[in-house]
Order: sequence, then C-alpha cells, then structure tokens
Amino acid sequence: METWDAIRARRDVRQFADRPVPPADLDRILDAGRRAPSSQNTQPWDFVVVTERDRLAKLATVWRGAGHVAGSAATVALVAPVPAEGRRGQVMFDLGQAAMSLQIAAADLGVASGHSAVGDQELAREVLGFPEDRFCGYLIPLGYPADRPLRPIERPDRRAAADVVHRERW
Amino acid sequence: METWDAIRARRDVRQFADRPVPPADLDRILDAGRRAPSSQNTQPWDFVVVTERDRLAKLATVWRGAGHVAGSAATVALVAPVPAEGRRGQVMFDLGQAAMSLQIAAADLGVASGHSAVGDQELAREVLGFPEDRFCGYLIPLGYPADRPLRPIERPDRRAAADVVHRERW
Repeated sequence: METWDAIRARRDVRQFADRPVPPADLDRILDAGRRAPSSQNTQPWDFVVVTERDRLAKLATVWRGAGHVAGSAATVALVAPVPAEGRRGQVMFDLGQAAMSLQIAAADLGVASGHSAVGDQELAREVLGFPEDRFCGYLIPLGYPADRPLRPIERPDRRAAADVVHRERW
Repeated sequence: METWDAIRARRDVRQFADRPVPPADLDRILDAGRRAPSSQNTQPWDFVVVTERDRLAKLATVWRGAGHVAGSAATVALVAPVPAEGRRGQVMFDLGQAAMSLQIAAADLGVASGHSAVGDQELAREVLGFPEDRFCGYLIPLGYPADRPLRPIERPDRRAAADVVHRERW
C-alpha cells in the first residue's frame, strides 16, 4: 500500500476478527518497530509478542482499558529498562516511536491496532516473564477489524490542522 | 512510495541539502503527525513549524545535540501541555507516536529527519512563543539529505530481531 494511504487508514480498533495474522506479516510489523529511531540509538525496547489465547486473556487484565487485548490476534508488549530518575520521558518517547512504526506497518497489511496502557506491572511481569529491572510501557493489540477493513480516512476524528499547526511562532 | 519501503528508507540525517521542502509536502508531513493516536484521543500536541533561517539558528541552541536544526529545511517543534505529576510518560509516548508518523510520511517524500531533545525550555519558549503552561518535548528537523537520497536499508544499525523479539514470554 502507498505510505500515505497506510497512514490515513490506520485507526484505533478494539474489536478484532477471529483470524490470526500470518507469521510473516507479524514479523514485518515487529521489524518495523525494531527500525524506529531512539535517543542516541539506545533502542530501549524489547517486544514480547503474545498470540496464545490464554495468555492474551490474562494480559487483558493488567489495565482497565486493556480488555480488547483478550480478543486480539496478537499483542506486542513494549518492555523497557526501568529508567533512571528524570529519564522516563525520553524512554517513553522512544517507545512511542517504535509503537507508531509498527502500527503503520500493520495498517499497510490491513492489520488494525489499539494501544493500551499498563496499570499492574507485577501482573504484566508474571504473564510476560520480563526481568525485575524492566517495565512494560504499553501494549499494542493487533488484528483484523471485526467491522470494516482499514481504508484511508478523509476526515479523522482529530483537532483541525489550523488549530494544531503554528507557523514560525505560536 | 510503498509503506514498507518508506519505513525501511527512514534514517537519521543531520546534514541537510540547502533545498526547501515544498509547502504541500510539509503540510502532508504535519497532517501525518496530527493523525497519530494518543491516550483517549487527547491529542496533546501542537506543532510549531519553523523555516526562517534566523529562527532555526536560534532554535539550534536549545540543546547541545540540536545543532543540525540550524541547517534543516524546516523543523517541527512538538509542544504539549506541562503534564500533571506522573503523566509525563504518557504525554511523551503520544509525542513519540506523532513524531514517528510525521517522520515516516517525510521519508515517503524523500525528506529525512533527525530528532533532538530540548534542554533549555525558556530559550525554546522565547524563540517559539508557546505559553507558560506548555513545554517543548522534542524537535524534528527535516530536509533532504546532504549526501545520498533515502533508499530502503537492508541491514539497519539496530539490535538483531532475535535479540529484541520474545515469543509468548520473555
């Protein structure tokens, strides 16, 4: 798909079709995340990709807004080192870049996403098995939309460009 | 360009050609940022886009790693509300998603980027004019590479997929 179409087709989806994402497509999506830029190329991410139904159901309980993880075809957990004091923002920015890269790669393949925060780190650690010196920043559930396929959206539910963009100075 | 090519062609560039980005291309890049997802669709971003040479030169002094802003064709400053205690990570994740969206849209148009942190918020405020209740999270300098054009990179300078990706459990 053309890049501009994939960017415009990406939308948050929380109801997924009961259909797996082919392994090769999932690998491409993960590769897109791995290629993201980061502060001094530190790449502060590990991706734990979950497709087992039981594990997805448990993972869906780590946050009140994570229920849709249970019905996803796959969920990518973004795990990073627990940052030093004052460095959390930088790590989270880099995780955001990786998340967006893999979500655009997914949209290109017709795969929708709908990111979720993580509330209960201990539960996430129990389900995913990451070490004590890491935390799970976000979950990126993936799957084909239960309703209509992804198509470029002309008028997204977003603030107007004229409101968001300032020229030369605020 | 195909999405997968744009994602693989994006690379950090800090030396830009002395050539402006056409306004329509810049608008598309900014539109890609505006379309990014965010926590509960809060869209916590404003984009101040700077193309004036003098202003770029001043903006390049807000951080020791921001020197390449001076030679960029345009720099997008990502501005957000100063977050409440404990919410900074969430806002920075959302800024990261917007940053990646506009950087992939840029790569699709042959426009390179190389993000920079912001150290001196007061100076950034003076140059960009954003209100007291906002901060500048990152700068995204844009321009055509001074050396070779963007082309898909087969082996990016990144950790190996086998190191980054964990299946079902860490």
